[in-house]
Amino acid sequence: MTSSFGQLFRLTTFGESHGVAVGVVVDGCPPNLAVDRDEIQLELDRRRPGQSRLVTQRNEADQVQILSGLFEGRTTGTPIAMVVDNGDQNSGAYDHLKDLYRPSHADYTYQAKYGVRDHRGGGRASARETIGRVAAGAIARKLLASAANVDVLAWVSQVADIGCTAGGEIADIDFAAEITRQQVEAGPTRCPEPAAAAAMTERIEQARRDGDSLGGVVTVAARNVPVGLGEPVFDKLDADLARAMMSIPATKGFEIGSGFAGTRMSGLAHNDPFVPGDRSDQPLTTSNHSGGVQGGISNGAIIVCRVAFKPTATISSEQKTVTREGEPTVLAAKGRHDPCVLPRAVPIVEAMMNLVLADHWLRQRATAALTSELD
Amino acid sequence: MTSSFGQLFRLTTFGESHGVAVGVVVDGCPPNLAVDRDEIQLELDRRRPGQSRLVTQRNEADQVQILSGLFEGRTTGTPIAMVVDNGDQNSGAYDHLKDLYRPSHADYTYQAKYGVRDHRGGGRASARETIGRVAAGAIARKLLASAANVDVLAWVSQVADIGCTAGGEIADIDFAAEITRQQVEAGPTRCPEPAAAAAMTERIEQARRDGDSLGGVVTVAARNVPVGLGEPVFDKLDADLARAMMSIPATKGFEIGSGFAGTRMSGLAHNDPFVPGDRSDQPLTTSNHSGGVQGGISNGAIIVCRVAFKPTATISSEQKTVTREGEPTVLAAKGRHDPCVLPRAVPIVEAMMNLVLADHWLRQRATAALTSELD
Amino acid sequence: MTSSFGQLFRLTTFGESHGVAVGVVVDGCPPNLAVDRDEIQLELDRRRPGQSRLVTQRNEADQVQILSGLFEGRTTGTPIAMVVDNGDQNSGAYDHLKDLYRPSHADYTYQAKYGVRDHRGGGRASARETIGRVAAGAIARKLLASAANVDVLAWVSQVADIGCTAGGEIADIDFAAEITRQQVEAGPTRCPEPAAAAAMTERIEQARRDGDSLGGVVTVAARNVPVGLGEPVFDKLDADLARAMMSIPATKGFEIGSGFAGTRMSGLAHNDPFVPGDRSDQPLTTSNHSGGVQGGISNGAIIVCRVAFKPTATISSEQKTVTREGEPTVLAAKGRHDPCVLPRAVPIVEAMMNLVLADHWLRQRATAALTSELD
Amino acid sequence: MTSSFGQLFRLTTFGESHGVAVGVVVDGCPPNLAVDRDEIQLELDRRRPGQSRLVTQRNEADQVQILSGLFEGRTTGTPIAMVVDNGDQNSGAYDHLKDLYRPSHADYTYQAKYGVRDHRGGGRASARETIGRVAAGAIARKLLASAANVDVLAWVSQVADIGCTAGGEIADIDFAAEITRQQVEAGPTRCPEPAAAAAMTERIEQARRDGDSLGGVVTVAARNVPVGLGEPVFDKLDADLARAMMSIPATKGFEIGSGFAGTRMSGLAHNDPFVPGDRSDQPLTTSNHSGGVQGGISNGAIIVCRVAFKPTATISSEQKTVTREGEPTVLAAKGRHDPCVLPRAVPIVEAMMNLVLADHWLRQRATAALTSELD
Repeated sequence: MTSSFGQLFRLTTFGESHGVAVGVVVDGCPPNLAVDRDEIQLELDRRRPGQSRLVTQRNEADQVQILSGLFEGRTTGTPIAMVVDNGDQNSGAYDHLKDLYRPSHADYTYQAKYGVRDHRGGGRASARETIGRVAAGAIARKLLASAANVDVLAWVSQVADIGCTAGGEIADIDFAAEITRQQVEAGPTRCPEPAAAAAMTERIEQARRDGDSLGGVVTVAARNVPVGLGEPVFDKLDADLARAMMSIPATKGFEIGSGFAGTRMSGLAHNDPFVPGDRSDQPLTTSNHSGGVQGGISNGAIIVCRVAFKPTATISSEQKTVTREGEPTVLAAKGRHDPCVLPRAVPIVEAMMNLVLADHWLRQRATAALTSELD
Repeated sequence: MTSSFGQLFRLTTFGESHGVAVGVVVDGCPPNLAVDRDEIQLELDRRRPGQSRLVTQRNEADQVQILSGLFEGRTTGTPIAMVVDNGDQNSGAYDHLKDLYRPSHADYTYQAKYGVRDHRGGGRASARETIGRVAAGAIARKLLASAANVDVLAWVSQVADIGCTAGGEIADIDFAAEITRQQVEAGPTRCPEPAAAAAMTERIEQARRDGDSLGGVVTVAARNVPVGLGEPVFDKLDADLARAMMSIPATKGFEIGSGFAGTRMSGLAHNDPFVPGDRSDQPLTTSNHSGGVQGGISNGAIIVCRVAFKPTATISSEQKTVTREGEPTVLAAKGRHDPCVLPRAVPIVEAMMNLVLADHWLRQRATAALTSELD
Repeated sequence: MTSSFGQLFRLTTFGESHGVAVGVVVDGCPPNLAVDRDEIQLELDRRRPGQSRLVTQRNEADQVQILSGLFEGRTTGTPIAMVVDNGDQNSGAYDHLKDLYRPSHADYTYQAKYGVRDHRGGGRASARETIGRVAAGAIARKLLASAANVDVLAWVSQVADIGCTAGGEIADIDFAAEITRQQVEAGPTRCPEPAAAAAMTERIEQARRDGDSLGGVVTVAARNVPVGLGEPVFDKLDADLARAMMSIPATKGFEIGSGFAGTRMSGLAHNDPFVPGDRSDQPLTTSNHSGGVQGGISNGAIIVCRVAFKPTATISSEQKTVTREGEPTVLAAKGRHDPCVLPRAVPIVEAMMNLVLADHWLRQRATAALTSELD
Repeated sequence: MTSSFGQLFRLTTFGESHGVAVGVVVDGCPPNLAVDRDEIQLELDRRRPGQSRLVTQRNEADQVQILSGLFEGRTTGTPIAMVVDNGDQNSGAYDHLKDLYRPSHADYTYQAKYGVRDHRGGGRASARETIGRVAAGAIARKLLASAANVDVLAWVSQVADIGCTAGGEIADIDFAAEITRQQVEAGPTRCPEPAAAAAMTERIEQARRDGDSLGGVVTVAARNVPVGLGEPVFDKLDADLARAMMSIPATKGFEIGSGFAGTRMSGLAHNDPFVPGDRSDQPLTTSNHSGGVQGGISNGAIIVCRVAFKPTATISSEQKTVTREGEPTVLAAKGRHDPCVLPRAVPIVEAMMNLVLADHWLRQRATAALTSELD
């Protein structure tokens, strides 16, 4: 079990779905950053269940309490602990899952690895664990925005086979400069294009009626990222982003810039030509197939990544599976579930992007400051 | 700069393309493992330039020397240092690159981040750095094969728009059980399907004649992986694989199991139903859209990943770029380069898979042994 | 700020003296360990203020709440979060300290490093931070006791210039085999020798009356430690113990085995001769100047360390100091303080010993299991 | 086995006494630092055997070769690999040690932990491993001196029961401001006080004649250390120094400032009163019992530490021991050994101090730069 992430800006999450509470400790946030509880709560509200008819109708308030690390509204450089109570969960609703393995969930692998598991609501493998990530990400976002004007924005670019017209692989790159948070938050799908959003909505509601579920793609863009973030050769910025995104539950793929589509281009078409920029030492590129990262280091262009989410594993249709003793059985999920997690995944993907960038920004400052000093 | 990878099975690579040598230190390999220099050299030979007419015609011998960590043919638990001399490189061939930035290379970002760079042959960003990974990977492979019978195999499944008939996203999953190392090594493309391999060969040779380059996809499969590898919630096996693969030069995307194709499936079709296995406590799944990992932990099924490589950035056609002072200029690469890195990427992808699995295998052993002891 | 400790058995503490709460997250504890809240509370009770007339008379209940990581009384392998409320602290009592620096406290260095500080009760530098360590240490103790029969015991061996007759450097080593927890807990000094304990008590009460304070030495012994713990060359067991102990507030020195006294011996007298043990592959030594560690690895003998604590920095006598603006001023502490921290330091030293051993025990298991497998 | 040290300025050592070579990889050194091979060789010459009649008469040239990380005389931010060949060692001289355990060496614990060991010359446990530390420390020294004017100096303050008049615990603190490198290097003992040095020399030569050995204390001072280095609560500067020093072979104790002597003082005498300094925000202290570190953070005063070294374990007198099969036997060391390692330990202790300070200096820069930016 490894519940910590980051080298200098470091978070440690804790908590199971039906334990007393979930939460996070953020260690390494620089002192003197103004942090408001409401800014954190805002991000948690974007993540929480029950926020729209498209997502699960469980109503969880998810109010965050800050236990340490702030003094008179500012960070002190000490660890920031944040906790969200789980409330009175109806754990009995999960009794029928105690001794069987839900297909494409982590029930079997947790049982096999740990020999014991909290079966209620997925336990530690529940997406409730991401509450800690989103709370920590809100602080990372504030740091990056305050100190470097970095702006991170994610959106749903595909649900099942419905994509944004403007979206889809290469096209997302240009789209990434234009899109606004208002456009994303305009509707419950968090797809910024109204026509596509309407089609997605319809398809998601159909899936719910069918007892089925859908997957899709979240695209995330980071704008105004300083040149120089990333630590080759193993902590390259794109490598750390890949790890961060693939640690989110239900993800199956990651790409940056041209991604898999770029494998079908020729080098002459794919290379991003340099042209002079406003500053003589900061050239620009006329295309951005690199996705803002070259050689594992940010080049000042918009960072654009796409994250693949599989269809929700929990469905109400009947499925074949086995019991813990290896006997065949049949499962039909009860309760209220997300027919499509994509809308709620948006703030989680943003959180992970902010967390990776905050960590690398601190790492880069150490080196950058030195360089001039030694000249 | 972070040149170390792994928690318990840990490697640290060093060296620039045109420095004295490149190499690696492997720390944490368990004692008493029989290691033969020839096994390491074999993997380096699969990676080295000049091995076929499809890759760069630079002839580098890349002979490995082991400096420490072995005694009478076995590991002693102490760090294993391995070095490959760079030989007499013609560094003058790179003088024309000293003051300009090659498009879609790391020249600009290294200059901007470090304020100084070894421009000869890409310096630290050169793919020569992967020599250390491949040498370390050979030891990881030996460990996994000796102690757990794990078998890792990669192949070229796509070049430009030419894919294996049997390959391509979902199809690769079943293909992964059948393919043999002989099939992969039968030809210089390392594509196991003769018809596709022939088409790829022709296309690569055409790209060379055109002064252009091609990208593609390497698929990698790990067979006989024990159940239980992976450390949620941040060091999930798939997250660590994503980071490992995305730290390889020229990669733009990673997917596991159904990957991006899985986002277009419904949950009912995508979920992998459990059925009884030979052991009552080890059920099997009738499909493998999960790609061998559920909840970040291996489930005993074949692990199947796909890694996207962009077309080689170095091409001999003329390209627009800027100088270090921000002046527009024109570049045409000289020398002998790979029109397509895919065939040489195969042993590198295998190395990273072996390194991640070896590290997680050690991590899992710590826990596994305890569980029974405490009962 | 680095608030995490350990590689595989890893804790992260959080909280300031007068914030909402202090606590800890323990990550990496193996699953299936029976853990009782009372066992944790017992250790906290040994640490808490107000437990005797020798220590500070502040009455803090320090009741621990477990938020995650346990299911039906056993660990699940997931992070264990534990929180202790700070209660209603009278923060106004610290207003006079807001703008001056208490001598030999961390007020000045925190202000200089972070540019902002929570001055109430020492903030993060308060010994209240050690609550998290003691709670985590209780779990480490349980693990070591359950799985390996390891027994860790510390005691006060010196206060000011009053030492145990049987104690004092070399002598402690033999004493370490005989001493019992009952002897240590028999009186409020936690010195197991009644005559010395009485003298210490008298001296501490005199110091309190004088508005002064005293330092001393805690000796800690670990018995039944398996052979083979410790990871040379940098994570040697003695090196990690030194770091662990020197991270406790108010410590100024660490020694193991013969320590500084051993520097005055000759090699012939100091070397520990091997003699046959009960098992042919586990020899014993006739002396233990090594203190149970040779070459950074435990050798099966009792591990004996001594930790130096300076006299408490908070005293009620007047002292010269400066304000935050650099003006000379005079300080006299108010409130109830420990004239001697040694008795309360005992459970903290034990916690750090247990935490280091638990971490190294997990690390060793990874290697040990492999060795036999590869034969 | 953990052969890496440091978070941002990170070294990895490798090599056994009688393998092909020993060496080190330094990762994280900032770019643009002028580094000269001769500066590194100078430190290795201070460490090498045969440099005076007081130390072992083995004549090892220990010439360092730099394999990577420098370009045109400056660091590039990439890993710096350095190697020292072991030369043609007469390994046969160690055949009689193959199957027995030398008292107070690491022979038994390595055999027990790893199940296999390179018995020649101590293998990995040999002090030859410290060559890598000293080479890395030379780079850390250059960084600290160039960028922050930090000056680290160590000396032999005690051999057996012969101490510097000016030395010895508390006294060392004032002495630390005055001493010069010339004084230390004036004679082969590296004790800066001529009378004590002469007595030490005589005693060491007597021990050699007696077939015996001696221990002692190295004191190390760091001057001009910036305020603010150290990362509470676990990576406190003093805690990391303790770990660093206790990872050196043959060490048994560590103290900072008043150390163990301070435990016998009262709080009123021990506290370091603040007085105004030249800058209003940087007060001074009129005593330095803290040893330059308060609350785990440097306070600008001289850092003074003392490190206890046991008498050399290798002696030519006969000793009782056991064979690997547990049979009693007798050992008398052959060959040329150090009757007292103290003089050669001085550059090693300096290296570890420089390495810890360089790492913490980089860590502090990350935070410091941010603080002002956020105001």
